[in-house]
Amino acid sequence: MKVNKKDFSTLWVEKNFVKIIDQTKLPFEFVVINLKSLKDFCKAIKEMQVRGAPLIGITAAFALAMSIRRNATLSHIKKCVNLLIKTRPTAINLKWALDQILKKIIKLPEKKRAEIALELANKMREDDILNCFKIGLNGYKIIEDLFKKKKKTVNILTHCNAGWLATIDWGTALSPIFLANRNGIPVHVWVDETRPRNQGALLTAWELKNENISHTIIVDNAGGYLMQKKKVDICIVGSDRTTVNGDVCNKIGTYLKALSAFDNNIPFYVALPFSTIDLDTINSERIPIEERDGKELSHLTFNKNSELQTGEIYFKGSKTFNPAFDVTPSKFVTSLITENGIIKPCRSEIRKHLNK
Amino acid sequence: MKVNKKDFSTLWVEKNFVKIIDQTKLPFEFVVINLKSLKDFCKAIKEMQVRGAPLIGITAAFALAMSIRRNATLSHIKKCVNLLIKTRPTAINLKWALDQILKKIIKLPEKKRAEIALELANKMREDDILNCFKIGLNGYKIIEDLFKKKKKTVNILTHCNAGWLATIDWGTALSPIFLANRNGIPVHVWVDETRPRNQGALLTAWELKNENISHTIIVDNAGGYLMQKKKVDICIVGSDRTTVNGDVCNKIGTYLKALSAFDNNIPFYVALPFSTIDLDTINSERIPIEERDGKELSHLTFNKNSELQTGEIYFKGSKTFNPAFDVTPSKFVTSLITENGIIKPCRSEIRKHLNK
Repeated sequence: MKVNKKDFSTLWVEKNFVKIIDQTKLPFEFVVINLKSLKDFCKAIKEMQVRGAPLIGITAAFALAMSIRRNATLSHIKKCVNLLIKTRPTAINLKWALDQILKKIIKLPEKKRAEIALELANKMREDDILNCFKIGLNGYKIIEDLFKKKKKTVNILTHCNAGWLATIDWGTALSPIFLANRNGIPVHVWVDETRPRNQGALLTAWELKNENISHTIIVDNAGGYLMQKKKVDICIVGSDRTTVNGDVCNKIGTYLKALSAFDNNIPFYVALPFSTIDLDTINSERIPIEERDGKELSHLTFNKNSELQTGEIYFKGSKTFNPAFDVTPSKFVTSLITENGIIKPCRSEIRKHLNK
Repeated sequence: MKVNKKDFSTLWVEKNFVKIIDQTKLPFEFVVINLKSLKDFCKAIKEMQVRGAPLIGITAAFALAMSIRRNATLSHIKKCVNLLIKTRPTAINLKWALDQILKKIIKLPEKKRAEIALELANKMREDDILNCFKIGLNGYKIIEDLFKKKKKTVNILTHCNAGWLATIDWGTALSPIFLANRNGIPVHVWVDETRPRNQGALLTAWELKNENISHTIIVDNAGGYLMQKKKVDICIVGSDRTTVNGDVCNKIGTYLKALSAFDNNIPFYVALPFSTIDLDTINSERIPIEERDGKELSHLTFNKNSELQTGEIYFKGSKTFNPAFDVTPSKFVTSLITENGIIKPCRSEIRKHLNK
């Protein structure tokens, strides 16, 4: 998508290096960095220089491919996989991407492994772009229908960032919105700030601004009020892991918005590629919920006289607790917007669309 | 309540001056200021040097009493009332306090008005302390019952600040918690950060720390997750206005927590004095919801090398919207904890307890 009118994706290979946009610096600074060692890749995922379930998966795929180049033995590969798996526990795409590569290369002779692993990582990257575009097309129809009925600006609420920065390009929840805007449908987006890391206020708002899409930042507390006041026509969010039963694990606070949408009869859609669906987990209580450093609550980056600083916003002496995700039970989800179509969040429907 | 082991209230009269704790500086600095002119009082309410529905009401009462000292004509009194009413539109206590004084003094000769108005303001201040203590006693029984059943620490979630800083002393939602702690019941409080002004993380956490009560700050997004994981036994919040039908207007985001408590079968209590009940408004959609400056979202105070500074946390170019309150429909409220007892949130019950 566009950054200052120039096309970018979040991760690409250039002269044998994997390059990423450092998302911890956005939107204040646009910095492209090289990932070389496995340590670089692990740090990038863990410290959220790359984030968003689909992008985490593909970054891990490239991390593995690049590591195999240096050493293609099975023991080294397993060590790398273990290190990568530990970086972020909740997004299932990470495991999915590594599994895809592992199952293809372990049968191959060592000298073939690096080449094929990189081919697979590149293919995943291409597939991600295509799948996100398809998610966009499928979701676009929902927004178009709403516009045809309403004949006025469609107001969409989203939580966190599920835009192109969470994928390679296009995004999941924002992909339908980008397409609607490019096709002349008037949309306005309510952007949840998304504490503690403010990915909504920082990343989503920046993406929308770059695409010239009308938007307003609100605190996470305000969504319920807006829904009560009929200022929201539809909610679209992303997912970090969706069980085969349709329970949606996503950024902390998603569940509260789903409850409010349900109480106010507002459709609540979740946009995701099939790589986000966890076919093994039936009981969503088993999803490991990442607990991150409490400093993410108490410390923020500030822009002071055009200089970026980190400052403490709390008073010393109180504990903090920082779970990164919650689970929205499928009964509060209207439908899943996937690359294979709009699907009811239940096992039979998900399985039916799995291999389309 | 205690501040560094010394007893304080939020507002008192000393040598003919009204003194308040400047709450915009808390918890980083403890500053007591004098309110002299009506302009001082209006600024204090508008800029939230005093906040919390009960305290706003009593501050307005003193503002009016002090103004009448300078000029006791009816036209001046009406002018003052109009200016005060406009400072904060949502908290009904403001109107209630002014009405109480007005109806008593307009019948009096001019020279008597100042003295009686000040007497009434002082009486309101005393009544507030007593009522908040009674709220504490009534709510204490709920916590005590929970502890007797559970025999382990009672986990309480609260939103925003409804502690002693929101009243003269004791508070509303926190009053039962202070009493429980002082009576040896083990309690732990989940403190919602409460964006945009972070009154939870700043004021509530500070109050709890001063009373040595175990607590943990969470982002507003996290409460639903904690309730799903059975980490919350009970929610207690305050109110800025409660309709005679039991619909509760309170700090933005309260509604989302009530929905989540309802979905997880967790009791959701609202603690309030009767001065917070709006007997005239039947349809809660008619409650005026204050929209505050968007800068409250984008700018924050932070502590950098022990120096307080204000900085911008968003990137330029996005709009913000900042409604300060929402309404929780009575069906999501378990009961109201008042100075007159624990009351079901419905018109017949509220009316029955009105003049106890």
